[in-house]
Amino acid sequence: MKTLDKDEIAALGIEGGWVLGLEDFVRYGDLDSNNHVNNKVYHAWFENIRVLYLQGLGVGLVLDGKAAIKPVVRSAYMEFNAQMMIGEDYVSLCHVSKLGRSSYQMDFAVWCAGTFRATGHVTMVMVNATATKSCPIPDDMREIFVTRDGAKTR
Amino acid sequence: MKTLDKDEIAALGIEGGWVLGLEDFVRYGDLDSNNHVNNKVYHAWFENIRVLYLQGLGVGLVLDGKAAIKPVVRSAYMEFNAQMMIGEDYVSLCHVSKLGRSSYQMDFAVWCAGTFRATGHVTMVMVNATATKSCPIPDDMREIFVTRDGAKTR
Amino acid sequence: MKTLDKDEIAALGIEGGWVLGLEDFVRYGDLDSNNHVNNKVYHAWFENIRVLYLQGLGVGLVLDGKAAIKPVVRSAYMEFNAQMMIGEDYVSLCHVSKLGRSSYQMDFAVWCAGTFRATGHVTMVMVNATATKSCPIPDDMREIFVTRDGAKTR
Amino acid sequence: MKTLDKDEIAALGIEGGWVLGLEDFVRYGDLDSNNHVNNKVYHAWFENIRVLYLQGLGVGLVLDGKAAIKPVVRSAYMEFNAQMMIGEDYVSLCHVSKLGRSSYQMDFAVWCAGTFRATGHVTMVMVNATATKSCPIPDDMREIFVTRDGAKTR
Repeated sequence: MKTLDKDEIAALGIEGGWVLGLEDFVRYGDLDSNNHVNNKVYHAWFENIRVLYLQGLGVGLVLDGKAAIKPVVRSAYMEFNAQMMIGEDYVSLCHVSKLGRSSYQMDFAVWCAGTFRATGHVTMVMVNATATKSCPIPDDMREIFVTRDGAKTR
Repeated sequence: MKTLDKDEIAALGIEGGWVLGLEDFVRYGDLDSNNHVNNKVYHAWFENIRVLYLQGLGVGLVLDGKAAIKPVVRSAYMEFNAQMMIGEDYVSLCHVSKLGRSSYQMDFAVWCAGTFRATGHVTMVMVNATATKSCPIPDDMREIFVTRDGAKTR
Repeated sequence: MKTLDKDEIAALGIEGGWVLGLEDFVRYGDLDSNNHVNNKVYHAWFENIRVLYLQGLGVGLVLDGKAAIKPVVRSAYMEFNAQMMIGEDYVSLCHVSKLGRSSYQMDFAVWCAGTFRATGHVTMVMVNATATKSCPIPDDMREIFVTRDGAKTR
Repeated sequence: MKTLDKDEIAALGIEGGWVLGLEDFVRYGDLDSNNHVNNKVYHAWFENIRVLYLQGLGVGLVLDGKAAIKPVVRSAYMEFNAQMMIGEDYVSLCHVSKLGRSSYQMDFAVWCAGTFRATGHVTMVMVNATATKSCPIPDDMREIFVTRDGAKTR
C-alpha cells in the first residue's frame, strides 16, 4: 500500500487540500464493455480510500457494524471528466471539507497524468449501532476534520 | 427478466412517472461487511436498468463503444434512505426527466416494501464514437423522452 | 425471485439431478471488455445460489460469521463451455453430489438455450465459528443431502 | 504498480518458480458479510495478474476481443487455505507451468505473511477471433513459457 500524506500530495503538484492519497493503477477488472474504467468502479475506489481514511483517524471507530457509533453514507455525487484506460497510474484522494453537528462531507478525486479524471463527494452521517438515530460527530473526529483537513463548519 | 412498463408500475402504487421497472431481489453478492446492500451496488442496479432502457428505445444505439453516437455518464447523484437486507424483493425504476440539446437527466429509484430505499439520477451526454465531442440527442430519442417519459425541456 | 424446485427443473428438460434453480438473465454489469460475461461472474452466480440453497435448508445456519458452525469454501472448480451475451436468459442450478464426515461437494451449472454454458463444483467444509476446526455435518443437513439431493457418501 | 520479476520474488523467499508478482493489499471492497476477503475476489486478483502477464509477453496479443488469436479461459481451479483480512499486504503470483499444442496451464498463488493463502490454476486455450476454433500457441509465446517459466510440454 502506497499512501500519501498532505505534504507528499502537495509535492506532486496536486492542488485541493487533500490529506490522504493512495497510489494505484487501472486493472483489467476495472474495465467494462467499452474497454475503459466503468463508472461504478470510481465509487469503489472512493469507498476504499474512505475506509483507509477512517482507519487512520485513530478514534476508535470500527467497520463491521458492531460499533456504538459509526458513519454511514447519506448521499453521493460524482463527476466523470475523462475516461481512464488499462494500465494508467493514478492517485485517489480525499479530505473532509465541511461538517455539521452529526454529518460531514468528504470530497474525493482521481488524479491521473496531470488532471482530475473524476471528482465527487459523499455526505456521511454519524449514527448509532442500529443506524436508527443520528449522533453528534465525536469531538476527536471533529478536531481532526477542522485542524488537519481544514473543514468548514456548516 | 421481469420488466414492468408505465402501467404495470402504476398498478403497483409506485408514484413518480417511471416508465421502466425491473423486479429483482437482494443477493448475497450485494452485501458488504455490514451485512447490508453496499452503496456501490445501487449504482450497479441503476446502470443495469439504464442499459435495459437504452436497448428498449429501439433507436439504433449500440453499447460496445463502436456506435457513431452514444450516451455517456457525465455525473451521478444518489441518496440512500434506508438499508436493504438479503432476500428483500425490490423494483428498480427509471425514466428521463429533463433534456437539453445534447444532454438528458435520467432519474432512478429502488422501491422496496412500500418505500424508496434509494433514489438518484445521472446526467447523460450524447457524444461521438471517440467521446471527444458532444452531439445533439437524435430526434427519435427526444420524441420518446418527451412524449412517453414526460421529460421537461431545459 | 423465481426459484425452481427439482420437479420444475426436470419439467424444463434439464438433466442432472438439480434440486434448486434460479431463473435470471445476463445484465450489463456481468460483461467485461470482450463484451461477454466475465469468467468471475459465474463464481458470483454460483455463490448467490449456494446461499439461497443454504437459506432453504432450514437447519439453523446463519451467514454472518457468528454461527457456532458454518460451511466454508475449501476449493472451487469451474469449466467454461460457451460464452454468454447480454440479455440471455439462463437458469443457475445446484445440488449436493457427495459428502464425507465434515465436507461436501456442491455441483453447479448454468443452463442457457438448451446447453450448459458453465459447470462447476465447490468443496465445502463445516467449521466452527472461528473457522479453526472442522466439524461433522449436522445430521439434519446430511439427511437432506442424501435423501433429497441424492448425494453419495464418500 | 509494484510488479516483481523472478529474481525479486525469489529474494522474498517465495518458492515455486513464479515469474510475475504484484504487491497489493486487501481493500474494503474485497470483503464480504463475513468481514474477510470473499472467495470470488481471488479470481479477480488472478484475472488481473493474468492480464498483466499477457501484456508483458510482448507478442502482439490484444485484450479487447478483436485479435486474430487470443487466449480464453477453459477451466479454473482454486484452493482457499486461510482467510484474509482488511489491510493485509500480499503478493499475487503467476507462471505458466504446462503447455500443449493450443492450451496451457497458468498457476497462481497469493502469498501473505509467509504462507500461500490461496492457490489455483487456469487452463487457457488459444482461439481465433470469434472463439470458434482452437489455434496453436504462437512460437514466440511457447518459447517464453518453456525458457523463462520452465513450463513442461504435455
